[in-house]
Amino acid sequence: METNHWLIGKSTPKFDGIPKATGDLRYVEDMVLPGMLYGKILRSPHAHARIRSIDTSKARGLPGVRAVITAADTPKVKFSFIESQSDNLVLCDEVVRFIGDEVAAVACDTPELAQKAIELIEVDYEILPALFDPEQALTSDLLIHEDRPNNVSAELHTSYGDIEKAFAEADFIFEDRFDTSKQAHCPLERRAVIADYERSGRVTIYSQTQTPHTLRKEIAKVLAIPVSQVRVIRMPIGGGFGNRLVMDMKEPIAAFLSQKTRKPVLIANTRQEEFMTARPRYPYTFKLKTAVRKDGKILGRHAQVIVDNGAYSDKGWGTMKYTENVNSVFYNVEHTKFDGYIVYTNKQYGTGFRGFGNPQVTFAIESQMDMIAERLGLDPLEFRLINANKKGDVTSSGKVVDTESMLTTLERAKAKLNYEEKRSQYDNQPEHATKRRGVGIASMLQSGGGSRGYGYNSTDAFIKISEDGQVTIITPAVEMGQGPQTVLSQIAGEVLGVSLEDIQVIDHDTDIIPYDLGSWGSRTTYVNGLAVKDAAEQARAEMLELAGLRFDLPADALEIKEGKIGPRADWSQAVSIADVTRFAAQKEGRVISGKGRYFDPEAPKFARGEGAHNFPNLVYGCQMAEVEVDMETGQVKVLQIVAAHDVGKAINPASVEGQLEGGIVQGIGYALTEGIIEVEGKNVNPGFLDYKILSSADIPKMDIIIVEDLDNEGPFKAKGVGEQGIVPTAAAIANAVQHAVGARIANLPITPEKILTALNKF
Amino acid sequence: METNHWLIGKSTPKFDGIPKATGDLRYVEDMVLPGMLYGKILRSPHAHARIRSIDTSKARGLPGVRAVITAADTPKVKFSFIESQSDNLVLCDEVVRFIGDEVAAVACDTPELAQKAIELIEVDYEILPALFDPEQALTSDLLIHEDRPNNVSAELHTSYGDIEKAFAEADFIFEDRFDTSKQAHCPLERRAVIADYERSGRVTIYSQTQTPHTLRKEIAKVLAIPVSQVRVIRMPIGGGFGNRLVMDMKEPIAAFLSQKTRKPVLIANTRQEEFMTARPRYPYTFKLKTAVRKDGKILGRHAQVIVDNGAYSDKGWGTMKYTENVNSVFYNVEHTKFDGYIVYTNKQYGTGFRGFGNPQVTFAIESQMDMIAERLGLDPLEFRLINANKKGDVTSSGKVVDTESMLTTLERAKAKLNYEEKRSQYDNQPEHATKRRGVGIASMLQSGGGSRGYGYNSTDAFIKISEDGQVTIITPAVEMGQGPQTVLSQIAGEVLGVSLEDIQVIDHDTDIIPYDLGSWGSRTTYVNGLAVKDAAEQARAEMLELAGLRFDLPADALEIKEGKIGPRADWSQAVSIADVTRFAAQKEGRVISGKGRYFDPEAPKFARGEGAHNFPNLVYGCQMAEVEVDMETGQVKVLQIVAAHDVGKAINPASVEGQLEGGIVQGIGYALTEGIIEVEGKNVNPGFLDYKILSSADIPKMDIIIVEDLDNEGPFKAKGVGEQGIVPTAAAIANAVQHAVGARIANLPITPEKILTALNKF
Repeated sequence: METNHWLIGKSTPKFDGIPKATGDLRYVEDMVLPGMLYGKILRSPHAHARIRSIDTSKARGLPGVRAVITAADTPKVKFSFIESQSDNLVLCDEVVRFIGDEVAAVACDTPELAQKAIELIEVDYEILPALFDPEQALTSDLLIHEDRPNNVSAELHTSYGDIEKAFAEADFIFEDRFDTSKQAHCPLERRAVIADYERSGRVTIYSQTQTPHTLRKEIAKVLAIPVSQVRVIRMPIGGGFGNRLVMDMKEPIAAFLSQKTRKPVLIANTRQEEFMTARPRYPYTFKLKTAVRKDGKILGRHAQVIVDNGAYSDKGWGTMKYTENVNSVFYNVEHTKFDGYIVYTNKQYGTGFRGFGNPQVTFAIESQMDMIAERLGLDPLEFRLINANKKGDVTSSGKVVDTESMLTTLERAKAKLNYEEKRSQYDNQPEHATKRRGVGIASMLQSGGGSRGYGYNSTDAFIKISEDGQVTIITPAVEMGQGPQTVLSQIAGEVLGVSLEDIQVIDHDTDIIPYDLGSWGSRTTYVNGLAVKDAAEQARAEMLELAGLRFDLPADALEIKEGKIGPRADWSQAVSIADVTRFAAQKEGRVISGKGRYFDPEAPKFARGEGAHNFPNLVYGCQMAEVEVDMETGQVKVLQIVAAHDVGKAINPASVEGQLEGGIVQGIGYALTEGIIEVEGKNVNPGFLDYKILSSADIPKMDIIIVEDLDNEGPFKAKGVGEQGIVPTAAAIANAVQHAVGARIANLPITPEKILTALNKF
Repeated sequence: METNHWLIGKSTPKFDGIPKATGDLRYVEDMVLPGMLYGKILRSPHAHARIRSIDTSKARGLPGVRAVITAADTPKVKFSFIESQSDNLVLCDEVVRFIGDEVAAVACDTPELAQKAIELIEVDYEILPALFDPEQALTSDLLIHEDRPNNVSAELHTSYGDIEKAFAEADFIFEDRFDTSKQAHCPLERRAVIADYERSGRVTIYSQTQTPHTLRKEIAKVLAIPVSQVRVIRMPIGGGFGNRLVMDMKEPIAAFLSQKTRKPVLIANTRQEEFMTARPRYPYTFKLKTAVRKDGKILGRHAQVIVDNGAYSDKGWGTMKYTENVNSVFYNVEHTKFDGYIVYTNKQYGTGFRGFGNPQVTFAIESQMDMIAERLGLDPLEFRLINANKKGDVTSSGKVVDTESMLTTLERAKAKLNYEEKRSQYDNQPEHATKRRGVGIASMLQSGGGSRGYGYNSTDAFIKISEDGQVTIITPAVEMGQGPQTVLSQIAGEVLGVSLEDIQVIDHDTDIIPYDLGSWGSRTTYVNGLAVKDAAEQARAEMLELAGLRFDLPADALEIKEGKIGPRADWSQAVSIADVTRFAAQKEGRVISGKGRYFDPEAPKFARGEGAHNFPNLVYGCQMAEVEVDMETGQVKVLQIVAAHDVGKAINPASVEGQLEGGIVQGIGYALTEGIIEVEGKNVNPGFLDYKILSSADIPKMDIIIVEDLDNEGPFKAKGVGEQGIVPTAAAIANAVQHAVGARIANLPITPEKILTALNKF
């Protein structure tokens, strides 16, 4: 893996590390704007009810209350992430559809007053019957949204090849059901926003968004003003994970309050509000019907999916689409079919979450892979090798597999865990051992460069260099702890020969940053990285040209390396970059800058239906879990996770490991402990005492194996790595548990109760 | 002046008008950063003294005092705008050199505590003899700075042609003395700064600077940290006028306090501090010796100048250099000589002020023009026409005159005022009239594109376009009320066909804006305008290319006009720019942006002494004043100012008129009422009650005549216009007074006392 790179491939502390560790970094809630007011939202206590009337007079009468608003004070524009699915008012006018739905809001001189004020608002509700089970909702006469028959928000049906032929030719057909949980993102920073209206009519939103330009459009829509009248200043994000992809209702509510009061307005969630109203991962119900030949070859796979949408539509479509994409690409299966429904229920609604629909579908497919292997009497690894995607394969949906890394990651993980030995060792545990161990495998497939779903996946970047050699990168890449500021600086610094301490990254303001889709889908390093590299190469060319004047040599007789620039023929003459930029300004009167672009020509074709695939590139990974199950308590202890992942070139290996480890930890939580519990639509575990995420004490030994497939188009061959880590973990653990105790838990999370039940211990 | 421009040449309200008028705009003192402390500076009460000791213990003991600093807490790096002149410590260590010199500083929880705290600091001073008169200082044994013999901060001597030959051939030699006053800039916003230190070692300075990148270097120097460790955020400026070109000592002092307390620190001037310590216009003493032939031709001019520097060096060099430049270019004089000295005194020190050394030298030259004309029995206008710079003339210093506008502006002003008629009418006023009227002329010459004095005069600009067609201009142009945000938007909007409401300007942060010298020398519209135009043309080319795909036509078959883009052949098909940008993103996956540059190839040559001239371009103007003098009180009433100025193309005529009117009003104050009065080095009129600037009630009829010389290289042929207005006003008024009462007042301001004295009324 040795390279002659200066910065690329070197583990580098993240730029935001020190300010985060020292508390220097200022989050939304740290800000105080002149005259700022404090907002608070009155939320529905009912899962489904009609609003007969709202009396705000008592609240308005309270001194220090500057504004009280209800739907009547808004344009009542229905919103959803996808225009055609718009079903959600910023403030409910007639009906509330889940516990936590926004009904009214206040802006006051202090947070305490705001709390008092909402308690003084009187709402007269007529309780309506509610739907909590999506399968029931599909067949119920009761409609949560009148204009959505069968309570279906969206459906997706695809068929590649001939699934019936596959079933006809199969020696075996396996049909299994899998259920996944409602995982909360649990960012440690609670959601907050400041809206600041100017008399010009322009509003500035201080937001934790992952998608600043998309948010502008969303806010403009519900405020019924032009997009150009909205400025989004993206504040530091204390955890994104997809929870901040779509407009939070607090954002337009704060804007309405600011518009009314002509003062900045801050609204922040309590932790309970965060748990009850922030949008979690979509729970899935899967029916997987898979056709297999007796030699172990999978002929076809039919996935039937019901997505529990909750009360309103958000990222359900993209999530289910991702599930469909994986179903049609994952493993070398000639015939695939997908039937999916996103179904309304009177519950907290979902959004995108690290991996979108991939952890769900991977849990289902990879669990079933082991179930099938067992029924066929094959080793799960052997069965996977038979069906793995290999370089050159063309998937049922027409994607050409451009990497061998599905096999490589399997092999590397196997070797690291010492799989065969452990497998056979645990196959022969004493019958009545009180603690039984097992190992489990799960592979995964993910896009490492965003998605072409929008029809565009491109962006620009600027680079400007000050006279002292300091470099600024202006990029729309969103820093949310995943490290793009550092990675993009390594890319620019590598090209320009500038050290990291002389690089600044500007990435926070829609008035400044080029248009972009934001940070999600593991796209930042790939998409923004390519644009920054292009800009840096332009600036480098200008730098060499000017250095040529300084050395009185042609530009191509010079080279830039390790923070210096000088004649290839006599490196002893080399000078610092700052020396050249000063010369450029003072002797040649020139300023150095660059403008770069990433443009994915396949994306528009995809939008035009010209058959390009949604995945700009493919990354494969394999995780193997070793667990120990206490047969008395049903407690699962994860002893070790071995994770081999293709990341293309690891630009910042420490950061890559951090991303993978973070994903795995979230994946272990997804597998064993996490999940919102709702009783009659009420979230009954809205806090960290009842909703268990892993603490550092719970984290097992993790062996991260970075597999570098350098045969790709990424910046210095890098691929995105933000999501991979979480995708296969739950399946690997479920398979390890099955190996340990011989029981298959097919619905997440894998709690002791479920294990003991499966073992007939109740 | 009709053109087919869409935005150029149309009077447009300034972008910052509404937020300024409504109070929405947030100045430094409106800001509150988390944990912010309030700083205050202890200043010297003595004009010249040695510091024996400083006892800060009482102040440190006061609860709520977070830091107390003296020179001992600083690296003691001497500073001046020009490295070689460095003579000024941020905090004095051994000697104080003027009343107001910075001695110590505190940071406290409240402003009131800060005031208390500095009162508790005990300084033991040994009073030293002081120098207040620069002519005395030149010959005194007492040195204000030990290493500056004769108390000379800098001197400049140039000679073009052969001045002795001129005097030998002259029929007349006239030698006259002129003195100018110490005018204060009087920005309505007092000077304030917030410094915010991060543990990373980086400091952010929220400053009202006109020169953000220069300030970074200055701050870094005195803090003894790398330039890249300083970030300057340029805040709204409530009046610049040159007062904010050079680092204010509050800026590093706040930085030291922030470094010590690890909290943001705000320091703001009281109005009295503003008057006593903000740096005013340099007072000049002129001796003008001019050789004239009896036919009225000026053969030579020798200017001897003493500049009263005050206690420390700042912009004296640039100011005197400007004086020298004008002396060598203004009027068609074959032989010119200049001898100038900048001399230290124990007084408040000066800095750049609108026009630099030009209002001073123009007052002297244009006063003497009338005095000579009178002695020769020529009409002042006739005398000027004989000697005016004409297109093609080569000045004594080698500048080729590239415009006829000296003559044009004279002619236009003459016609507007009805000069001859009024002149002869007032020549024949009744002997003993109690009120006498007069008219006076003064021409002027200025650079309308900055200066080549640095050896570079160039900058870059970025343009980015969002998917909704909104345009952002990223430019280092500093908005200080002179309107560059509006003008640059007109330039970009004209090129791109985008309306002004869809254009944002980003111009405030050294981490974002390309390197530039800042806003001064009337350079912004010219230098930054050319860079923005270049960037816009790039973006326009991309826009046309993409529109070509949309219309399926070659780019050159399309045109952009009036906010639309469409086929030249069938304009009915034209669509909005937003339509094209949306198409570009969604159908072609392309984002549109541009990077532009202005590069003055002559500037580096000038620095290398290859003879190019300091002025990138020339603007001429002529003002005529009509005054009425009360012979009893000596009160001068300005009845009318006619001002004809070459501005190249007036991109925003209302803004051009505003700049000229503002300059004229400052010029009338300079002529009649303004000037800091010092007694033993103590400023005795430090407030608006005793220091009289014009109020709206004092403003006479002003006729602004915009002369558009379109034969130049500016953006859409524009030249800079920020300084011109003030330059000739005082001379025009002095000449009008002389015409009215027959007395020549050769030292500013022209007070009633001076007039009555000249009329022997005392």
